[in-house]
Amino acid sequence: MSAVEGRKRRIGLLGAGVVGGGVIELLRARGSELGLELARVAVKDRTKVRPEIPSEVPVGTIDEVLADPSIDAVVELIGGLEPALSAVRTALEVEKDVVTANKLLVAEYGGELRRLANERGAALRFEASVAGCLPIIEIIEAGLIFDRVERLFGILNGTTNFILTRCQRDGSTYEDALAEARAAGFAEADPTLDVSGRDTAQKLAILVGLVTGRPCAPSSIAVSGIEHLVPADHLAAEEVGCRIKLIASFVRTGEGGRARVAPTLVPSSSALGLTTDEYNAVEVECAHIGWQLHLGKGAGRMPTASAVIHDLITLDAARERSRETESKGRRPALDLAASDAWTARWLIRVPEENPAWPVSRIGAAFAAHGVEIVEYRRSRRAGVGTIVLSAETTKGAIDRVARDIAKLQGAVKIPVVLAMEPDA
Amino acid sequence: MSAVEGRKRRIGLLGAGVVGGGVIELLRARGSELGLELARVAVKDRTKVRPEIPSEVPVGTIDEVLADPSIDAVVELIGGLEPALSAVRTALEVEKDVVTANKLLVAEYGGELRRLANERGAALRFEASVAGCLPIIEIIEAGLIFDRVERLFGILNGTTNFILTRCQRDGSTYEDALAEARAAGFAEADPTLDVSGRDTAQKLAILVGLVTGRPCAPSSIAVSGIEHLVPADHLAAEEVGCRIKLIASFVRTGEGGRARVAPTLVPSSSALGLTTDEYNAVEVECAHIGWQLHLGKGAGRMPTASAVIHDLITLDAARERSRETESKGRRPALDLAASDAWTARWLIRVPEENPAWPVSRIGAAFAAHGVEIVEYRRSRRAGVGTIVLSAETTKGAIDRVARDIAKLQGAVKIPVVLAMEPDA
Repeated sequence: MSAVEGRKRRIGLLGAGVVGGGVIELLRARGSELGLELARVAVKDRTKVRPEIPSEVPVGTIDEVLADPSIDAVVELIGGLEPALSAVRTALEVEKDVVTANKLLVAEYGGELRRLANERGAALRFEASVAGCLPIIEIIEAGLIFDRVERLFGILNGTTNFILTRCQRDGSTYEDALAEARAAGFAEADPTLDVSGRDTAQKLAILVGLVTGRPCAPSSIAVSGIEHLVPADHLAAEEVGCRIKLIASFVRTGEGGRARVAPTLVPSSSALGLTTDEYNAVEVECAHIGWQLHLGKGAGRMPTASAVIHDLITLDAARERSRETESKGRRPALDLAASDAWTARWLIRVPEENPAWPVSRIGAAFAAHGVEIVEYRRSRRAGVGTIVLSAETTKGAIDRVARDIAKLQGAVKIPVVLAMEPDA
Repeated sequence: MSAVEGRKRRIGLLGAGVVGGGVIELLRARGSELGLELARVAVKDRTKVRPEIPSEVPVGTIDEVLADPSIDAVVELIGGLEPALSAVRTALEVEKDVVTANKLLVAEYGGELRRLANERGAALRFEASVAGCLPIIEIIEAGLIFDRVERLFGILNGTTNFILTRCQRDGSTYEDALAEARAAGFAEADPTLDVSGRDTAQKLAILVGLVTGRPCAPSSIAVSGIEHLVPADHLAAEEVGCRIKLIASFVRTGEGGRARVAPTLVPSSSALGLTTDEYNAVEVECAHIGWQLHLGKGAGRMPTASAVIHDLITLDAARERSRETESKGRRPALDLAASDAWTARWLIRVPEENPAWPVSRIGAAFAAHGVEIVEYRRSRRAGVGTIVLSAETTKGAIDRVARDIAKLQGAVKIPVVLAMEPDA
């Protein structure tokens, strides 16, 4: 659907939950002056009383919204794959623009849906799906007009960053920090998606798809979560001037790139290190303009609703740009390096102090796999053990070193391996 | 001029210098897919050979561009007040959209030009006028859909930040650092506009106008520059864990606000403290979403040109929003606090060590004006002298304290007074 001239853009809203309620509130308050009009709302439970929906707006089913020919744009806030996926497909088929906050949908089906949108001359927007409060998709797309993203590092999940901040700052255990995150409303009843790193991987997949112009499946991204971190890991990080953050990273390499999500050491006095509590941050390094950093709260009802409204008022500009993105989208899927081949500098924490393990024994494990030691120190703090920093090497090599250390005589615990951010 | 349907938006370019050349380059490379077409270029010197301009594009005078009825949008890259102001006025009068990178023009005449644009149904955009590479105007406008900016702190001038970084990091004098900035291409032959803080004040005036919806004249902003800082000032800042940055700040207070530009102490390990070299940074604190930080290079040919292109492809969305901004713009001019009434915590550096001045004498100067001392220390570093940190008080009061200290028996130098950022 092309530019709507001389009348308001009519919006069909799918889902009237927390964010949907925020969108309704903004449309009531500002819709008229922004050229937007709420035409219809689809809800799951039609018996529920919803005083926020104006009485003149029909409330019904998804099909009723999709079948209404007067509707220009559909806002999908159902979440999850179905029925959201079918609804978005149908909306685009009938040439309605779509705005969604659904990261799973965009991460898994973004390539297909963008192609469909372009075939039908419709726009597909999803600013609210990544770092709700930061217009990171707009920023990357604007930058892509002339530039090329070489590296991207992000803290994309507020829940895990809240937990890690509590662990690092207060010495909380993972379990206590998780309980605190729940009490503060930052963690779901089932936090698995967040703490496993999979939520972050979905968001990273969306950003990688954007910066490379080629679909990136979340499953192609190596992921590790924060569930296994213990207080001693945070103390070890602190000893080397760092903090542990759940970092989503993409580094371009030739035609492909490396993308992964992992607990990573970043310098305490770096922008990412200073990103605490429920904040998100995205660091983007481009070929021409160098690096940029954007830091702010990642989620919340009104910020997310505001991102949706912003997508709605920039649909026409987006339609132009997406044609270009789509033509790149037909290129083959991205060649992401296998997780074993990922190189970094690493911290190995050997949690046991064992007089039978002089530096020479641990050093031999590194030497056996051709990995250089850059720093070696026995921590004076109880329970931390020995900290070894390696030179740059592959994940495969450092894992082999860790396995050899675990086989030393008397070892009962497996060493902890953590990546270090390039500048750490 | 409203949405351009079914054909390319025709662009008239005023000025083909550094940024103008970048705009031409981007239009040649990407214009077609973005729905933009270079229609005419106006240059000062028509005899100069300009191979970057496609041969089919007429090159002529400003009047020829303005008189061309086929042109939808005018890009003003002349700079300065005249003839830029008259050209922009005429363009808006004849209902052409205008995109400009001219900070002086927007700072001084933004209110009038916005009203004119709205009367004629045209859009006026100026993303490239502030922090070229960071889409800060877009970010603030998007946030204003539902939120309210309470405080804004920014490093908005790359030249001065480059100079201050050299002074702080390398111990350079102001003069040496300025020479280095010139050699690196970051300073003009006449750097007065930058180092006096006036360039920053123009940009701040634009941002304050945006966040308050009311015109803010640059002349209403209290400004002090960086020309008078000496190496000992940077050492004093370092002793209290801070760095000196040229900070533009706005703090909302009731119906008005406080806006100023001054060398200010920020914590070394804060986002603004970590903003080094020619980088810009803007910290925005909103009522609902809390604070955000955006950090990146402030200027450059392609980033600035890209901001212009971005303004061009979002003209329709901007037109809707500017109606709202304009209605607020008719409110009375902002009540900015007089510079004397500005409160902050302060650092006073008494550059002389004088045995005739025990803490009691300096303390008495503070007490006489009701200003509390929070920290007092004699620096062990040569030439730094005594550092005193005050509790929050007005600029007027701290200046009176400084004047009293300067009158102490044997004093030859005037104490240096520096504001501290709220979180320092």
